[in-house]
Amino acid sequence: MGLQSRHLLGLEGVSKDDIHLILDNAVSFKEILKRPIPKVPTLRGKTVLNLFYEASTRTRISFELAEKRLSADTVNFSKTGSSVAKGETLKDTIRNIEAMNIDMVVVRHAAAGVPLFLTKCVDAAIINAGDGMHEHPTQALLDMMTLREKYGKLGGLKVAILGDVAHSRVARSNIFGLLTMGAEVMVCGPKTLMPYGIDEMGVEVSYSVDAALEWADVINILRIQLERQGKGLFPSIREYHTEFGVTKKRLEKMDKVITIMHPGPINRGVELDSDIADSENSVILKQVTNGVAVRMAVLYLLSGNEGGEESS
Amino acid sequence: MGLQSRHLLGLEGVSKDDIHLILDNAVSFKEILKRPIPKVPTLRGKTVLNLFYEASTRTRISFELAEKRLSADTVNFSKTGSSVAKGETLKDTIRNIEAMNIDMVVVRHAAAGVPLFLTKCVDAAIINAGDGMHEHPTQALLDMMTLREKYGKLGGLKVAILGDVAHSRVARSNIFGLLTMGAEVMVCGPKTLMPYGIDEMGVEVSYSVDAALEWADVINILRIQLERQGKGLFPSIREYHTEFGVTKKRLEKMDKVITIMHPGPINRGVELDSDIADSENSVILKQVTNGVAVRMAVLYLLSGNEGGEESS
Amino acid sequence: MGLQSRHLLGLEGVSKDDIHLILDNAVSFKEILKRPIPKVPTLRGKTVLNLFYEASTRTRISFELAEKRLSADTVNFSKTGSSVAKGETLKDTIRNIEAMNIDMVVVRHAAAGVPLFLTKCVDAAIINAGDGMHEHPTQALLDMMTLREKYGKLGGLKVAILGDVAHSRVARSNIFGLLTMGAEVMVCGPKTLMPYGIDEMGVEVSYSVDAALEWADVINILRIQLERQGKGLFPSIREYHTEFGVTKKRLEKMDKVITIMHPGPINRGVELDSDIADSENSVILKQVTNGVAVRMAVLYLLSGNEGGEESS
Repeated sequence: MGLQSRHLLGLEGVSKDDIHLILDNAVSFKEILKRPIPKVPTLRGKTVLNLFYEASTRTRISFELAEKRLSADTVNFSKTGSSVAKGETLKDTIRNIEAMNIDMVVVRHAAAGVPLFLTKCVDAAIINAGDGMHEHPTQALLDMMTLREKYGKLGGLKVAILGDVAHSRVARSNIFGLLTMGAEVMVCGPKTLMPYGIDEMGVEVSYSVDAALEWADVINILRIQLERQGKGLFPSIREYHTEFGVTKKRLEKMDKVITIMHPGPINRGVELDSDIADSENSVILKQVTNGVAVRMAVLYLLSGNEGGEESS
Repeated sequence: MGLQSRHLLGLEGVSKDDIHLILDNAVSFKEILKRPIPKVPTLRGKTVLNLFYEASTRTRISFELAEKRLSADTVNFSKTGSSVAKGETLKDTIRNIEAMNIDMVVVRHAAAGVPLFLTKCVDAAIINAGDGMHEHPTQALLDMMTLREKYGKLGGLKVAILGDVAHSRVARSNIFGLLTMGAEVMVCGPKTLMPYGIDEMGVEVSYSVDAALEWADVINILRIQLERQGKGLFPSIREYHTEFGVTKKRLEKMDKVITIMHPGPINRGVELDSDIADSENSVILKQVTNGVAVRMAVLYLLSGNEGGEESS
Repeated sequence: MGLQSRHLLGLEGVSKDDIHLILDNAVSFKEILKRPIPKVPTLRGKTVLNLFYEASTRTRISFELAEKRLSADTVNFSKTGSSVAKGETLKDTIRNIEAMNIDMVVVRHAAAGVPLFLTKCVDAAIINAGDGMHEHPTQALLDMMTLREKYGKLGGLKVAILGDVAHSRVARSNIFGLLTMGAEVMVCGPKTLMPYGIDEMGVEVSYSVDAALEWADVINILRIQLERQGKGLFPSIREYHTEFGVTKKRLEKMDKVITIMHPGPINRGVELDSDIADSENSVILKQVTNGVAVRMAVLYLLSGNEGGEESS
């Protein structure tokens, strides 16, 4: 029983069964990670290329650990120190690398659609580690794993996604995945940071963080990208914190427990108060731990998928 | 039966037997790379340092894959993030690294002669991965492997090398290697990009790409280094393309098949048309695949060469 | 029998027994490094993060080799290409990384106290690879290993540390370690480069390199950090060389053998003459070789130390 696709480009269109299959495997791998030697020979002899055109700490390290714990050989490529500077096309870069017999490529790129494009160029299995404002599927999978772990199921759960929804690949992947799994999703943030057509995605929309908190079982707080300030879309940091910051005061008004999620890195004191990030209802570090297990599951499930239609 | 030298600094002076030995071993390693687990324990416990003072994607990754598939431990050093910035001499850098018991060093440097210099400083086996405008021997070896694979032999083959011959370490290594193997070599390019004394190297010289194509069985098209423009030596890109670009139109005039080679990265539409680069007569991706096998062969053959005259 | 602490933050307060334990283990590992396959499975399945916020060649490579020869999985993090640029706090970075089940962290940072701070944030064992002007304990351990190897003991040995003592973490770690082991220590350098309160550390102080050479069995010459010039503390390079440079002429005046040490990278011709650096009394390259063995010993001794008081 494998996944329906031989790549993981996003969660749009991925079936409930496939998501369950990934999460079930991730649970098994999480058990393995608790062993004294948290390593399995599953991908021995396979080579995985980590192709990161955007800076990354946690996602890159998380994938690299997942690969090493599966005993894969890993090769890292980052924009700096490479011949990208020499003006080579993306297609030539990837085809050249594939000609060296790479089995899987984990790719992050500032342009949406790059992972899809790569599937047209090479035979290797492609895993999207974040492409522009499009999708970041393994982030949403680890978010869902964390929630399923806590609540036992995803169906019926009310998840509010808060922040700069318009520019967030994390939001998009979570929306697709959570709706597929039967959860209810609300998005909340300043009007200027809401994407066109968001109401057609099957989610609730709110512009009040208090209303979102009242509604939600879980709040997934997006990182505010400080570099977007001063472009007219964005309030000041102080204003953002006042209007949309998740604060102790706001949460104490609610007569219930709300699970706190954040994909990191956190701007403490901007979108999320520091004591809430570290509170007992926060599952932020569990998300990170589950990230390695989810990525092991994805790598494992896609590695077994031999052959393919595309030719190089 | 090992190589005559315990280093690979270039192909100048390397015997026919040694080149055959490397290529024969590369063919065996290429077979291994087709196995489900393309890995051998040949270099287990050996440590290889990849010392790249110049940016590189494909050469660095190709060597790193070769090392990992031989089960060597690899350590990467690149100019950024190192104490080169602190003003240490090259000799001290390499001697310090060697004092950590490195077995082999793969080195790329902008200055010709650095690999040779390193052999005077340390006991480790040195492999030149490109030094200035001097040599890039593994590139020429993979080119020859690709041609021997296609034609069954190198003797008598007519290979034209096209482009900025004056500044090309790829051209020099190919000239030395191909002539040793009994091939005929022609170099072709603008007069301003021909090195002094080229006619004494035993090659034909032409300034007409049409004449070169008429003569050749194989054309090896060098990358035009766009950064050299505006220094008086170099025509404009448009002019270069018009005068020396390998185009469909030019090839269709020839009444024969010409094998297309390029060491990459390609400037598509400058020195080589995109459809020719991807045509059935192009062996460009085969070159890349063979690169890993050739580098495995070189690493293997040099690793067995214990002891040495030089002392640290 | 393990170390008293589960971290190695510095040598201040580390007992004589613990230092002997580390050095004895390092001697054993040095033997292993002479084997044809210099590798042991000691840390198989353990993951070590190399967290380098400052540029480094030899220390980073030395740790990485030590880890690989112990069969650990290693993950490298350097400031460039990471989300440090995104403004994440150090605490969040390290806690996130730890949530991925890292066992040990080797950290270098420009700010003194960062390794200590990390022990408050995470459960992983922390090894200080240099923090600001505080300590660089593995450097001092490898220095002591080299001296114990040469002299059979450290007690009673007269070690002069020469140079910019005020800004040197190497000097501080050596002072703490050597005094604990019963050696006598003198510091020597320009008055402007002597730290406040140095006389209370239990060392001799001299402002004359000739006096220091007369007194010493061993001279450990610190690297002059050229970037500190022009800040009023520092003489010119020429003046420094004249007043404090260790030269052949100065050494020839002494009627005895003085062992020459330097932590590297050397400014040849500034703090140390080139021919002295390479002379038979120099143990500079032995220091480098011993560095790998010492780091293997530290990694091994701290890895076995399960559990801990700090919680994440």
